[in-house]
Amino acid sequence: MRKLGLIAGGGALPLSLAARCAASGRPLFVARLKGMADPDLAQYAGADIGVAEIGKLFSTLHQEGCEAVCFAGVVKRPDFAALKPDLRGLTLLPGVVAAARRGDDALLRHLLGLFEREGFAIEGAHEVDRAMTLPPGPLGRYALGPEHSADLAQAIAAARTLGGFDIGQAVVVAGGLVLAVEAQEGTEAMLRRCAELPTHLRGSPEARVGVLVKWPKPIQDRRVDLPVFGPDTIERAAAAGLAGIAGEAGGVLLLQRDDLIAAADRLGLFIVGISPGAEAGS
Amino acid sequence: MRKLGLIAGGGALPLSLAARCAASGRPLFVARLKGMADPDLAQYAGADIGVAEIGKLFSTLHQEGCEAVCFAGVVKRPDFAALKPDLRGLTLLPGVVAAARRGDDALLRHLLGLFEREGFAIEGAHEVDRAMTLPPGPLGRYALGPEHSADLAQAIAAARTLGGFDIGQAVVVAGGLVLAVEAQEGTEAMLRRCAELPTHLRGSPEARVGVLVKWPKPIQDRRVDLPVFGPDTIERAAAAGLAGIAGEAGGVLLLQRDDLIAAADRLGLFIVGISPGAEAGS
Repeated sequence: MRKLGLIAGGGALPLSLAARCAASGRPLFVARLKGMADPDLAQYAGADIGVAEIGKLFSTLHQEGCEAVCFAGVVKRPDFAALKPDLRGLTLLPGVVAAARRGDDALLRHLLGLFEREGFAIEGAHEVDRAMTLPPGPLGRYALGPEHSADLAQAIAAARTLGGFDIGQAVVVAGGLVLAVEAQEGTEAMLRRCAELPTHLRGSPEARVGVLVKWPKPIQDRRVDLPVFGPDTIERAAAAGLAGIAGEAGGVLLLQRDDLIAAADRLGLFIVGISPGAEAGS
Repeated sequence: MRKLGLIAGGGALPLSLAARCAASGRPLFVARLKGMADPDLAQYAGADIGVAEIGKLFSTLHQEGCEAVCFAGVVKRPDFAALKPDLRGLTLLPGVVAAARRGDDALLRHLLGLFEREGFAIEGAHEVDRAMTLPPGPLGRYALGPEHSADLAQAIAAARTLGGFDIGQAVVVAGGLVLAVEAQEGTEAMLRRCAELPTHLRGSPEARVGVLVKWPKPIQDRRVDLPVFGPDTIERAAAAGLAGIAGEAGGVLLLQRDDLIAAADRLGLFIVGISPGAEAGS
């Protein structure tokens, strides 16, 4: 197996991937992005690298013999004016900033291109660990009921359209109403806002209504930035009175899968993966 | 001039329209929706009517000789289970609830149909007072700069697409990024959320970036629920660091027009009306 350079932002995803590599015996080097990567990643071979130290990142990955890289974890859009790039970073930064002005997707594509031109293969998190994505069909104890299928179809249609505009990857629909659409605030803030809407617009723990749908953007490079479900997603969806969460089968990453399923089973929410193309009949 | 029955929800719009009718000598009767309408409306001929007292509303409007009705002001989606309908309301409520399940636009269309079948003509607020909508071109002292035209075009395209899904009527774009999309939370909450995003994603009072666009839904009946700009819109947009606000010329209602323009001039924001079809070249 070719050696993997894991470029680790914040959150639990990089830890899961590193553990997976260790368990399968895959050689690994972790580039821990300063101020973002979980300190627990220090248990694996790696180095701390600033987000604009591109020269150091490239040379370290080459020295370590990494043939492929995987971008994983949360990387907030930096304040480009406040970055401290190294020499290589300085030459690349203008192109990065220009790409960033064209949206999140353009920025990611540009970064991937830089790594590819440097000779690295790019692997998505779902390629590093195939067990990590949402499978088709129900996950956990609760299945999607027929009373939720209209909301689900509406939410998928809206999420796909929004994604085409490089807007967010998440939509909440309850009882035929689009309650919320995610843009730069993130899924957690969006679900919090749903929980603050008048109770008659949404469901409750006693009578759950509505569904959160996350769907990859049709324009996006699936090797980075796939939408994510984690235990927090379930907790927040439950607090908003939703009946469940759904996403594209194979197109949503699962964080802490066991905890995720346990939370859904405990709170009575469904989790379902929808195969692309099958959503009209769902 | 035919006598107008003004069905008044919350906010300043019904007061503006009533004042306009009084100034122009148009006969007027104000149905003040209980718990919503501004108490100052009591200065005009009218009556307090509960939101589900449809029988009383119809008979009162007929007795008063109203030939046309105008729906104006904020009417929050009620909790249908908690309504206290009169006899006529009881017979009509199931249809209203069924329409509400198909979204905001379906609900409004259904309500308009009920009034039309009862013999009333429907007038939009912009028909009652033509001076009330956003004119084409700049309003106030500040004009749209060329540095804002890409954000403007992107926001218009997104808003029109979202409207086609009966999602909100408002989008914020800054520096090529869609910062926020409005759904059920309303424009004020959406702008508040923009003001909470990291400052490097948005502008500031010193270097304003980005635009709020409001655009009518392509599917909507323009006689009700046109998007609105008021002085609050400018205050909130300014707090979020935006450079200005824009909307469809003739398709956005202006509340407290003088105060709106004064706020924009004081805070340095542009207001611009875009003629439909001209947005690609803007």
